[in-house]
Amino acid sequence: MRQFAVLSGATESAAAVRALNVLRAEGRLSRVEIAERIGVSQPAVTHAVRTLVERGLAREEGRQLLDRGAPRRLVELVADSWYAVGVQFDLTATTIVLEDYAGNLVSSAHRSGVGETDPHTAAVGLAAKIRDLLDDASVPGERVLGIGLATYGPQDRERGMLVTPVPTPQWRGYPLTSTLGDMLDVPVLLEHDATAAAIGEMATGQVGTTFGVIYMATGIGGAVIVDGSPYRGRSSNAAEVDHITVVPGGRDCLCGGRGCLGAEASPLAVSVRSAERPLLVARLGLGQSLDAGVTDFEILARASRDGDLEAAEMLDHSAGLLGSASVTMLNLFDLDTLVLTGPAFRTAGPLYRERVERVVQTRAANRDLSMPRVLLGIDPVLASARGAASNVLRRVLPLP
Amino acid sequence: MRQFAVLSGATESAAAVRALNVLRAEGRLSRVEIAERIGVSQPAVTHAVRTLVERGLAREEGRQLLDRGAPRRLVELVADSWYAVGVQFDLTATTIVLEDYAGNLVSSAHRSGVGETDPHTAAVGLAAKIRDLLDDASVPGERVLGIGLATYGPQDRERGMLVTPVPTPQWRGYPLTSTLGDMLDVPVLLEHDATAAAIGEMATGQVGTTFGVIYMATGIGGAVIVDGSPYRGRSSNAAEVDHITVVPGGRDCLCGGRGCLGAEASPLAVSVRSAERPLLVARLGLGQSLDAGVTDFEILARASRDGDLEAAEMLDHSAGLLGSASVTMLNLFDLDTLVLTGPAFRTAGPLYRERVERVVQTRAANRDLSMPRVLLGIDPVLASARGAASNVLRRVLPLP
Repeated sequence: MRQFAVLSGATESAAAVRALNVLRAEGRLSRVEIAERIGVSQPAVTHAVRTLVERGLAREEGRQLLDRGAPRRLVELVADSWYAVGVQFDLTATTIVLEDYAGNLVSSAHRSGVGETDPHTAAVGLAAKIRDLLDDASVPGERVLGIGLATYGPQDRERGMLVTPVPTPQWRGYPLTSTLGDMLDVPVLLEHDATAAAIGEMATGQVGTTFGVIYMATGIGGAVIVDGSPYRGRSSNAAEVDHITVVPGGRDCLCGGRGCLGAEASPLAVSVRSAERPLLVARLGLGQSLDAGVTDFEILARASRDGDLEAAEMLDHSAGLLGSASVTMLNLFDLDTLVLTGPAFRTAGPLYRERVERVVQTRAANRDLSMPRVLLGIDPVLASARGAASNVLRRVLPLP
Repeated sequence: MRQFAVLSGATESAAAVRALNVLRAEGRLSRVEIAERIGVSQPAVTHAVRTLVERGLAREEGRQLLDRGAPRRLVELVADSWYAVGVQFDLTATTIVLEDYAGNLVSSAHRSGVGETDPHTAAVGLAAKIRDLLDDASVPGERVLGIGLATYGPQDRERGMLVTPVPTPQWRGYPLTSTLGDMLDVPVLLEHDATAAAIGEMATGQVGTTFGVIYMATGIGGAVIVDGSPYRGRSSNAAEVDHITVVPGGRDCLCGGRGCLGAEASPLAVSVRSAERPLLVARLGLGQSLDAGVTDFEILARASRDGDLEAAEMLDHSAGLLGSASVTMLNLFDLDTLVLTGPAFRTAGPLYRERVERVVQTRAANRDLSMPRVLLGIDPVLASARGAASNVLRRVLPLP
């Protein structure tokens, strides 16, 4: 039985762990640069690097030729020392990625979602899919540091279980992470899909350390990163944007309310609305797939991109409502940066980004303090699965 | 020139400071109890108490007779060692409170608001009002630890200035805290009115350390406390609930949007809506005051309490919209406790509490995890000014 340490935020202050994360974000660095980045003394960095080298996680090599002064050795992570698996699943799709210890994408796979499968069958199937991915990449299971599992909520993140009866009542309270961890003999970290995407976005270094995320797959989720850490709230189910009322008295929502963002503007809602237009359905060939609107939404997005005015109007309506909800999110969390990510933005991303930014730049309460900006995620389709892998790399330490 | 240390959150871990706060919240405690409450060793508490006693901030006296074992001496704060002033002001009203070092209310005063006064004149007037309050209470100015100043935003809290041109362009960037501090020779801490009320509510010990606050005066503000600290966001202007859209396409709002919570449901909005009903205006004698609806709202609240159905309907409409915005706030910040406070809840509090709770208990996304509850603040009228004073007591240390 291999041993791992799973870190909470509180213990991440160790210089060695911070050195790992800065090397993962920036690649090769000298000891001096590491010391500057993580704000500790040279001797502390020397000690930390020695520890990492001894444990096979980093190596020193190469020489950086400087204009003046002595050449310095560069530290880099040993990319093939360990690997992390990231999984994002929901009812309609499962995405699995494999990342090496430096955070490079090794491979990825798309599979069907859990549908209405019971949780044990789903866990068995997921373990098999993960083994397949490792086999295909010739990565031995004993080099895997852990599995990051990103999915919808509400979750009991600490206990590693969903607390929703979706898709079936057995899912509520089923020990998802411990079951999967026992099958694969590794730590499994549960995370919200939107939060995982936010962690992954932060790991790319493109957006700083305080920003919001709107994650759109079949439904719409949200996450907020403040000073480098996810805002968690009471039960780690924060930034639930799906039920912001955008059309009072509008369509019924599962939450018991009406006109919620999810019921009016999600890809599922857009596909439901499109199905009410027979000519549009016939012209674009909608309604052929049973995947809760995912395929229809993508068809509409491509048609819109290619000049179909009716499809464009459907998406523009949704994007406008998302813009309104984004104003609320930026106002409440006092943010000036919003990242749109998730598989629904694969093709529709530029249209939504432009529309949402227009709304928040004319309506966000603190726009006079700093003009809010809206960005598309680096890789909307893989964002959540890669963030889940990133979470493992940041939080799981192999013990000697 | 007297010397003070103004603490940031990071330095509040000192045992002496934590002992001060637990004594302020709970009154007399034995050293053993203090050690339990703040989670440090007995010797550390003994050292901390000795420091506080030497500096005249606490004393040990009395004997607690226990069923078994030796009697123990009790530690208590020296209530008249120092004082803090708390001020809440906006355009229509100014509330000033004086608290002693144990956090007891010594006196309070209500004055007119700043109206359209320029900021320097307002600061001079405020300094005079504070001196009057100290004179009336026979508290010498040199025993005042600081002034807590709670008001609307957006603010630059660190620099102690408003960054809004309300009520006049000169207010934007005017050095409010440094000017007032120079006049009175004490530290002045700026804070959002809603956040100050939340800090004060936490000091009462009635609501735990993670909760949301809706603060209603002329307009509507919000604040969130997580694990004992205010959620700040990017610019300390977080939890801006005033512009949550509650009626799409509704009344114009100053933010540039339409149908915002503030424009549809605030006391000002309720009074504007009431003014459109001539019979109601005549029956209740509305429209006699120029205070932005504050008086009219209070008249409506009393009429509603006394059985006037039309007045009740006006308030119920507002409370329902506030309930909807509260669902959004609880969902986004993942909270299960909401406190309604601020002067507008003086009479209308019970009606709003009941209505808002009904909405959030049927609609909050995580109600299956724990049923959300809605509470009225301990003292809605003084909440923000007392919280501003509490902020001074918690953050300003007199130096020897």
